[in-house]
Amino acid sequence: MILNKIGDIIKRNKSFAVVSHIIPDGDAIGSTLGLYNFLSEIGKDVDVFNPDKLPSKFNFLPGFFDVKDTLVKRHYDCIFVLDCSDKDRLGPLVELLNMADVVINIDHHISNDLFADINYVDTNAGAVGEIIYNLIRINGFEISHNTAICLYTSIVTDTGGFKYSNTTSMTLNIAGDLINTGIDFPEINRILFDSLTVQQVKLLSRVTSTLELYNNNSIAMLHVTKDMMEECGANENDASEMVNYARDIDTVEVGVFIKEVEKGKFRVSLRSKNKIDVRIIAEKFNGGGHIRAAGCTVYGDLDEVKNKVLNEIINHWK
Amino acid sequence: MILNKIGDIIKRNKSFAVVSHIIPDGDAIGSTLGLYNFLSEIGKDVDVFNPDKLPSKFNFLPGFFDVKDTLVKRHYDCIFVLDCSDKDRLGPLVELLNMADVVINIDHHISNDLFADINYVDTNAGAVGEIIYNLIRINGFEISHNTAICLYTSIVTDTGGFKYSNTTSMTLNIAGDLINTGIDFPEINRILFDSLTVQQVKLLSRVTSTLELYNNNSIAMLHVTKDMMEECGANENDASEMVNYARDIDTVEVGVFIKEVEKGKFRVSLRSKNKIDVRIIAEKFNGGGHIRAAGCTVYGDLDEVKNKVLNEIINHWK
Repeated sequence: MILNKIGDIIKRNKSFAVVSHIIPDGDAIGSTLGLYNFLSEIGKDVDVFNPDKLPSKFNFLPGFFDVKDTLVKRHYDCIFVLDCSDKDRLGPLVELLNMADVVINIDHHISNDLFADINYVDTNAGAVGEIIYNLIRINGFEISHNTAICLYTSIVTDTGGFKYSNTTSMTLNIAGDLINTGIDFPEINRILFDSLTVQQVKLLSRVTSTLELYNNNSIAMLHVTKDMMEECGANENDASEMVNYARDIDTVEVGVFIKEVEKGKFRVSLRSKNKIDVRIIAEKFNGGGHIRAAGCTVYGDLDEVKNKVLNEIINHWK
Repeated sequence: MILNKIGDIIKRNKSFAVVSHIIPDGDAIGSTLGLYNFLSEIGKDVDVFNPDKLPSKFNFLPGFFDVKDTLVKRHYDCIFVLDCSDKDRLGPLVELLNMADVVINIDHHISNDLFADINYVDTNAGAVGEIIYNLIRINGFEISHNTAICLYTSIVTDTGGFKYSNTTSMTLNIAGDLINTGIDFPEINRILFDSLTVQQVKLLSRVTSTLELYNNNSIAMLHVTKDMMEECGANENDASEMVNYARDIDTVEVGVFIKEVEKGKFRVSLRSKNKIDVRIIAEKFNGGGHIRAAGCTVYGDLDEVKNKVLNEIINHWK
């Protein structure tokens, strides 16, 4: 079994690097730091990398401040690449792949192109954190408190708090074992899911005041302009989840959030619940995404952009 | 073991009633309907009751429309009282207790006063739904799809989506087993946690626009007046969770939400994160609650009420 083979490589070798993809999410960060903490605790020489600066929200994770974004030329016995479907997603850190004897690719994306010496891709895993958990357990090691904090974060973020369909009974059993290490999971959840900045609350007030409903309340539109962002002292991150307030309305099938990028240029986020394939709508504007979540860039003034998007949705609905 | 004894009673008898407490929450509704579905499926004659009308949000639960709020005089072999710490919480349905040979009280509240013939109170259970799951399993029965929908709802609501400290590895293992019956748990979560009315979004915009911060941004206040509610077409329910937008701000220790009940009378909700015991503050105004969540009624005009509450918080902080 591959996880045993990887366990043997860990036992036999001394120096390791762990890295994940650009614009890292909770799974990328949690799984790399989980593996980093584990390898450090069993006495290995380990470096941990990410091509981008990590969002400060995750600074409660043990090892957060050890993550490096640039290389120093050296040699590693083994490098782990986690949650990364192809090596282009390592940005400039792709160089790491040439600095190790063995490259191990651990992922759960079906699109993974198996770029490494050893590839372990489990598409049934809700998060790469689940696979790292199994790697540690199957090879007879314990999960420490610090490692558990990281792996729990990986799993709870990538499954949307165990709400998404990628959650399995295995996911939940692993999460149960992790909380048995005594981690403060209510506090972790508070930080990850129930934390707002003052700027976000101000922006939320402004954005929700723009609500417009169409097509018998089945299409909801919200928008934000650069002026609104500025008045609230808000940044791009503060606006990132606002489309949910359109989609979550009980009568709504398609939620739209329009964000002014610059004069005459708008980023449009589209979400749907059950019926409408919003990717097709995004593709009409040369965008893309998934059936239930897609995006595109549309040009014009705000009213023009709203009308263009609305017309495409209604046309597609017919 | 008591759950086996209760299982024997189920096997030996024919007619059952299942009831829970007034102002029912997700656990009360999910656990009663879970047991109701199970008993019906194994061929028992069952009635299900609640003293109050159930919130329509739960109408996706199998058996929802079978729940009765009034009695017809008859006899039951056995009545189950679930999630109910004392019989006063049955309201007028307390009469049921005189209509059965055996009364079985199943609960997880430490305050349960053991009012029944058979009492099973497990304070380690995150939800009564967990106990009903164990009751069914320990006695060798299967969990059906319909029963699983109800028990999952019970557990996911009373643990706040597995975020609260009452979540255990047992909770998560049980939830895993329930999702293995093939229930559409992403849709259940969407209905329970990510559903808003248009009125709620409008009210959210108005309420968050009232944000005021004090004490180095560690105290946040939000308010709603009757006029604001009316302008948004909103009701009491639409305002029920607004205090979270004050508490969730990252710099905030105490979040306050002030709701006008009538001219000169305000309902004040208090929430805290780590340090301040908000019950003590609520008690100063003859209110009550818990360390992290309390409430009281304060009289005066809006500015007076804000000042009174703010002063008490700051006094208590010293």
